[in-house]
Amino acid sequence: MGRLELDYTNALSEVVGAQHGVTPQELDALAGPSREALRAIQARRKVDLRWMDLPHETAMHERVLEYAGRMAGRFENVVVLGIGGSALGTIALHSALNSPYHNFEARGPMPRLFVLDNIDPDLVGEFLDQFDPAQTLFNVISKSGTTAETMAQFLLFRERLIERLGHAAHVEHICVTTDERKGVLREIVKREGYESFPVPDGVGGRFSVLSPVGLVPLALVGIDIKGVLKGAADMDERCRPEDLRANPALLHAALQWTMQSKKHKPMAVTMSYSQRLALVGDWYAQLLAESLGKRKSRDGRDVFAGPTPVRALGVTDQHSQMQLYMEGPFDKWFTFLSVEQPDHAVTIPSAYADLEAVSYLGGRTFTELFHAERDGARVALTEAGRPNVTFRFPGVSPHSVGQFLQLLELSVAVMGEHYGIDAFDQPGVEAGKIAAYALMGRPGFEARRAQIESASPKRQHLV
Amino acid sequence: MGRLELDYTNALSEVVGAQHGVTPQELDALAGPSREALRAIQARRKVDLRWMDLPHETAMHERVLEYAGRMAGRFENVVVLGIGGSALGTIALHSALNSPYHNFEARGPMPRLFVLDNIDPDLVGEFLDQFDPAQTLFNVISKSGTTAETMAQFLLFRERLIERLGHAAHVEHICVTTDERKGVLREIVKREGYESFPVPDGVGGRFSVLSPVGLVPLALVGIDIKGVLKGAADMDERCRPEDLRANPALLHAALQWTMQSKKHKPMAVTMSYSQRLALVGDWYAQLLAESLGKRKSRDGRDVFAGPTPVRALGVTDQHSQMQLYMEGPFDKWFTFLSVEQPDHAVTIPSAYADLEAVSYLGGRTFTELFHAERDGARVALTEAGRPNVTFRFPGVSPHSVGQFLQLLELSVAVMGEHYGIDAFDQPGVEAGKIAAYALMGRPGFEARRAQIESASPKRQHLV
Repeated sequence: MGRLELDYTNALSEVVGAQHGVTPQELDALAGPSREALRAIQARRKVDLRWMDLPHETAMHERVLEYAGRMAGRFENVVVLGIGGSALGTIALHSALNSPYHNFEARGPMPRLFVLDNIDPDLVGEFLDQFDPAQTLFNVISKSGTTAETMAQFLLFRERLIERLGHAAHVEHICVTTDERKGVLREIVKREGYESFPVPDGVGGRFSVLSPVGLVPLALVGIDIKGVLKGAADMDERCRPEDLRANPALLHAALQWTMQSKKHKPMAVTMSYSQRLALVGDWYAQLLAESLGKRKSRDGRDVFAGPTPVRALGVTDQHSQMQLYMEGPFDKWFTFLSVEQPDHAVTIPSAYADLEAVSYLGGRTFTELFHAERDGARVALTEAGRPNVTFRFPGVSPHSVGQFLQLLELSVAVMGEHYGIDAFDQPGVEAGKIAAYALMGRPGFEARRAQIESASPKRQHLV
Repeated sequence: MGRLELDYTNALSEVVGAQHGVTPQELDALAGPSREALRAIQARRKVDLRWMDLPHETAMHERVLEYAGRMAGRFENVVVLGIGGSALGTIALHSALNSPYHNFEARGPMPRLFVLDNIDPDLVGEFLDQFDPAQTLFNVISKSGTTAETMAQFLLFRERLIERLGHAAHVEHICVTTDERKGVLREIVKREGYESFPVPDGVGGRFSVLSPVGLVPLALVGIDIKGVLKGAADMDERCRPEDLRANPALLHAALQWTMQSKKHKPMAVTMSYSQRLALVGDWYAQLLAESLGKRKSRDGRDVFAGPTPVRALGVTDQHSQMQLYMEGPFDKWFTFLSVEQPDHAVTIPSAYADLEAVSYLGGRTFTELFHAERDGARVALTEAGRPNVTFRFPGVSPHSVGQFLQLLELSVAVMGEHYGIDAFDQPGVEAGKIAAYALMGRPGFEARRAQIESASPKRQHLV
């Protein structure tokens, strides 16, 4: 039950210089704004930012566990039909806390998990070819019920289930997570009698992992959701102090804002030195990009704000992206995810004693090599003037990952205050959706379709 | 056997304006430099840039196919032990051309494929727990034989094979791809009698996918490597003309350079509207980052050059990154990968006729929805002044993907000329490697270790 720690030594001017590192004065200047940001956010906890309290919703946790217990052993596969915030948290926690080869394991009580977060016909069609819906539980997730991708998948798999099992028996193969009262998916639940869970009000998609959106599928595949929630609750407490240097969410938010606005680093690289945590980086990429990537400030000015999250994996990307990180433009700052204690101990055997380029490895462990490469990369980046911080996970556990999720959600909320934008909306995705509806010929979007067609370039430039 | 096309209409000033789009004058000004760059590159084809000719090395292709034929049906698993350029091409082509559920398919003659391109003990240890080395062929890939990650894995799996099968029988479970004459892995091949293939001279890791580095594992899992090579050879011919507007490699390189140096867009987003092509984007990310991310110009000045590749997946990332792409800073340009004809036709069933938010989907196909969302995203980005180009794949086939690989390798070589850097070295990765050797206690690196230890910050800043 160790603490997740943030080591920000290498992001400071005393280590990487004042051009690229944060000075004590810059941090001090953010003490007041950080305190105010925290107060503003905490004041909304019981109002519209209900996601902050998700770790404490114990009645809901029990309901999810009761359902998972009831379903245990009944299905070979659990399939999530959801996209964006309805998928990324589940992917992150499943990949962090189950084996990378979970879906290959000899089938015990735990089903395989597939998250179908795309509608490419070559993905959906292959899934139909390979897996038997009669052995599968589908968790359909959409707060509004209007998510076209998810609803198209729902219609498809619902029909296949009915063909295979009949209408009555198909019902228990579908579980719906949607708005508690309104929307088309809630209406469908009422008609069909599907099991359902709520997406509570005040819980936007990218802040929903600790709601039934993430908890239901995770509990179904054996994740210790209570451990995750305990970690999140512990971090929630750690993020109460108003002192910038004592509160990891405030400190992290201050670093992100300073790196972009004062040190001219538009890119936030998350480099996971853990295969298991790599996809937690994808979850954070949505949280950061969708929360802060905003055209308008809260007072209505055009600001075109937002850092760009870049995801990397150590040591793998040392052989792909590290050259750029070491020698390219000074336009990035780096966040390492590091794990002190892996679950597996594997020793490198000794052989070829006369071949020094190999023999030095013999008798050492994979952990030693992995950590040496991580630390070598960090030393090299630091010496090259590239500011970096490290989240130190004691191990990859439900408790440590739960801490991380809550910390980053709180941190991003505070960043919204520093950036002066609304961190909780996503107005920029509407335009593409409306254009897609128009191109699909959805009733009501005819004018937009005509406008797109008339505005398309007269001449295509091709090579 | 259709042609891969590059549609660059939406990257031009006539569509997105001169602040963000390329003007005819800017393209004209690059006609001469493009011609000279092409001549410079082509002159090195038979000298040091031997990767250009890989599609034409038919004797080698036959040797690979002969070996794959000999191994067919003998193993359940093929495992690549390689990292960076020894892994990314194989991952890209396997994910593009085999089913996303290939490893789950009822075992026919085609083995599963695993690419172990990391040394996280929790990855390596789980692999050991789950899979039987006695049913597995290991392809060990390192040109130098000094790649620590790969050699550590080789030592591990070699020992497990010997324990399980005895020394004599283990030999046929290992195939080595390394330098033809020198290096420690070549020496090991001689001692052990392993099957081996060469990494030819003049073929750097990130340009090696069409050498035995990629061809051997791909042939072993049933990829039509001749089709891929034919596509690459066809593109090689299409990239001969010296006219910028007639040569896709010259045009693509000119766009990349202009977007970064004239339009101030340091990020190159590759957004694959194809689940299958998503990991081809990872391959390109290495090619672009490692080739252009350079501190020094060829005349020795500090330039700290290089675009940052950002990988995205449509439609999935419409629900994650699109908000930022639409409304964030104007610091990106976008390359869509689009597929005209998917392999699977899946229709969305009709249901709930009275619920309009769902019923409009009934009777349409997943392809229609997928393409409408892609085109909607493209229209919306274009209207928001975000320049974009589209690679149009007629389908995801060996021939089309082969075209793409050769095009981008040639394009990146030309970019190197425009950027004025050496696109074929990677000096920036040495510092991290040496620091890792020092931290591992490898003989000969004691001084560096002492220096790292004495230079480490006196005080850690933690929260």
